[in-house]
Amino acid sequence: MSSENSVLLTDLYQLTMLQTYHSGRMNEPAVFELFIRRLPAERGFLLAAGLEQALDFLENLQFTAEELDWLDRSGRFSPDFVASLETFRFTGEVHALPEGTVFFANEPILRVIAPLPQAQLVESRLINLIHYQTLIASKAARCVLAAPGKLLVDFGMRRAHGAEAALLSARADYLAGFAGTATVLAGLRFGIPLYGTMAHSLIQAYDSEMDAFEGFATAQPNNVVLLIDTYDIEAAAHKVVTLAPRLSAHGITVRGVRIDSGDIAEHARRVRPILDAGGLSQAILFGSGDLDEYRLRELLAVDAPLDGFGVGTRLDASTDAPTLEMVYKLQEYAGKPRRKRSEGKATWPGRKQVYRQSGEDGVFTGDCLGLEAHPQPGQPLLQAVMRDGQRLAPPESLDTIRQRVRHQLAALPPALRSNQTAPLPYAVDIAPELRQLTAQLDRETH
Amino acid sequence: MSSENSVLLTDLYQLTMLQTYHSGRMNEPAVFELFIRRLPAERGFLLAAGLEQALDFLENLQFTAEELDWLDRSGRFSPDFVASLETFRFTGEVHALPEGTVFFANEPILRVIAPLPQAQLVESRLINLIHYQTLIASKAARCVLAAPGKLLVDFGMRRAHGAEAALLSARADYLAGFAGTATVLAGLRFGIPLYGTMAHSLIQAYDSEMDAFEGFATAQPNNVVLLIDTYDIEAAAHKVVTLAPRLSAHGITVRGVRIDSGDIAEHARRVRPILDAGGLSQAILFGSGDLDEYRLRELLAVDAPLDGFGVGTRLDASTDAPTLEMVYKLQEYAGKPRRKRSEGKATWPGRKQVYRQSGEDGVFTGDCLGLEAHPQPGQPLLQAVMRDGQRLAPPESLDTIRQRVRHQLAALPPALRSNQTAPLPYAVDIAPELRQLTAQLDRETH
Repeated sequence: MSSENSVLLTDLYQLTMLQTYHSGRMNEPAVFELFIRRLPAERGFLLAAGLEQALDFLENLQFTAEELDWLDRSGRFSPDFVASLETFRFTGEVHALPEGTVFFANEPILRVIAPLPQAQLVESRLINLIHYQTLIASKAARCVLAAPGKLLVDFGMRRAHGAEAALLSARADYLAGFAGTATVLAGLRFGIPLYGTMAHSLIQAYDSEMDAFEGFATAQPNNVVLLIDTYDIEAAAHKVVTLAPRLSAHGITVRGVRIDSGDIAEHARRVRPILDAGGLSQAILFGSGDLDEYRLRELLAVDAPLDGFGVGTRLDASTDAPTLEMVYKLQEYAGKPRRKRSEGKATWPGRKQVYRQSGEDGVFTGDCLGLEAHPQPGQPLLQAVMRDGQRLAPPESLDTIRQRVRHQLAALPPALRSNQTAPLPYAVDIAPELRQLTAQLDRETH
Repeated sequence: MSSENSVLLTDLYQLTMLQTYHSGRMNEPAVFELFIRRLPAERGFLLAAGLEQALDFLENLQFTAEELDWLDRSGRFSPDFVASLETFRFTGEVHALPEGTVFFANEPILRVIAPLPQAQLVESRLINLIHYQTLIASKAARCVLAAPGKLLVDFGMRRAHGAEAALLSARADYLAGFAGTATVLAGLRFGIPLYGTMAHSLIQAYDSEMDAFEGFATAQPNNVVLLIDTYDIEAAAHKVVTLAPRLSAHGITVRGVRIDSGDIAEHARRVRPILDAGGLSQAILFGSGDLDEYRLRELLAVDAPLDGFGVGTRLDASTDAPTLEMVYKLQEYAGKPRRKRSEGKATWPGRKQVYRQSGEDGVFTGDCLGLEAHPQPGQPLLQAVMRDGQRLAPPESLDTIRQRVRHQLAALPPALRSNQTAPLPYAVDIAPELRQLTAQLDRETH
């Protein structure tokens, strides 16, 4: 079994706590909420992503016989506790922000209500799944905003952190508005459009660059984008121009060239006229190599004649902000609101909802974090997605989510759309009833 | 099938190149080497890791019927090419640095020799596997060097990037010298020692903190480390002291307390005397929360009375340097050395070896990157690990690798051991024969 499907992909303390809840028969409903404590300094907003994988996880959660046997032999747990895990399933309800929804600090993006042991056990993997896709979708959205109208392709598989990140980054990038990915498995699994042609090794394996271009073009006649920076970029561009009529005679069109090193803006400026003069004005220029939203902005600011970009490592590892302070906190147990008061990590108690207000033009004007029982003005964002451990609707299509992202990004206040971060030009207010509940709990808890 | 085991977890261009090699019958032996272009500014050395998972991948590489069918229906490839993939296996040879070996920029850590299509296809996943564990083991080694003699535990599962990163970070941390991990699956899979007790949610779920401590201690009598920062840390420490004799009467010992928020050095200084005065001088103080090697150094510099640390997010996402410039480059094809000359990305051609010299005290004095055919002074580091697609020896135990790491870290020049990065106080020379070969290729390639 892969790590992706094992219920033991969790922290040991979840199991030691479950043993405690088992001993104490603590099985009342618990309300946990998943949220971000603070935005990274480099982010003005985030995009919720990963819900579908999280719901898959909850629907399929169970211990295998091998896992139970191993837990039993570990000597850490009582036999009757381990036996109780045999029938352990997730039977709770879940509210969540639809994937692709913009959100901010302290706003729940997922709420779980379930018997305490169930709601507890799922913490580590829920964060693990939602954290990563949210991280990457948020970064990808910044790339999309930085390069409007450009073809953006995810090239990050190899340096994403492991297999699941390699696969799910493609999904997160695509839902945020990328045109597609180089990751083949994301095509098979999610139907995401695939892009890719050749690496430098193909050029090097041939004794001449011209032979390599011709060999590739005849073997992949519908996919002729040629990599021109293995040796000398301008010389390679001239070879492409020389080759194009020969290919054309066989009905093969050069669709573009890729530049992967050096100052790609400057190289593109030299290559474009060579291609144009050679009758290849339809061929696109595709750039890659250490790109991210900052570099894309620079390239567009200097009007680099590039039509598309492969964005890889810096995107799929979110290198400028590689993690989010995402947490999953108990807000109510057995009908009583709960609050953690740890220094710098205090939580807002109770079952909450996010209320978002918009202007007449549809642009978001501000959010309010309030109690579900005390609705505030604005649109409530958390929606019911699971009850009795079962999804309430089939998974949303990626097209649906992509469309939501387009609307959400268009509704961002201009300062956020232009990537402003600090000071954050957007207010998340706390509803008065929530402040009152918090103060009351602080007086009572001992 | 999980993403971890699919041969389609690769970049599309690998397949388009394979189609080209198939069309051109380019099946001669290719030599690819995997190395780091540059060290991150924040790193003075790296530790090789991930070889076992890479060899597993090569040994088990094959296309499933579903995958072949999907490729066929994609319309991108010729039917006879897709048919040829049915029997596709990796039959090549591999040389590698043993896991836990210290290495530097430009030094191959893995070399693959195989028919070109085989050696090509494996690029993306080989990098994906070796990049991540190398990244994390290198960061974990810095933590180990920063906190000698302290109990270090991996707490990073939840914010590692996806499932495989969550699992393999535990392995990388452990081989670098961590005492263990909180990630349960790493215990089952790799036999790594597990650590973990409770989260704040357990404390909150009880109506009083004292009841929570007692409930946990009686349910987990051999694992009593109590989390004391949910509400008021010093008040909680007094509760632990009050509770300890009651537990002791039932044969239960309080092994320690954990502090997870605020200035943990200052809190530890206040808690230690409370525990000591209460007869709990044997109880350890365990700290967690946003730790990494920098913070560990600070805590030790101020003599914080902490005995152990949970190191999580910043370690398992390597937040100060979240990626390495790891590449896999063609160095020879059909008996001829090959060289990429791209701006800023040029490679050293040919089959290479890393030769390391040490002083009489065993401390490394310098490396030389040379051609395998022209041995240089020093110990050659790359070793044969696979031939004809089969491992030459069973996987090394993690204990063996941990022991190697201890020796390697002890043999680091003092400036590297104390985390000096730039200017790097360690030389990697290029052998004269390698320089000559490079110059000769540059004259010949067109």
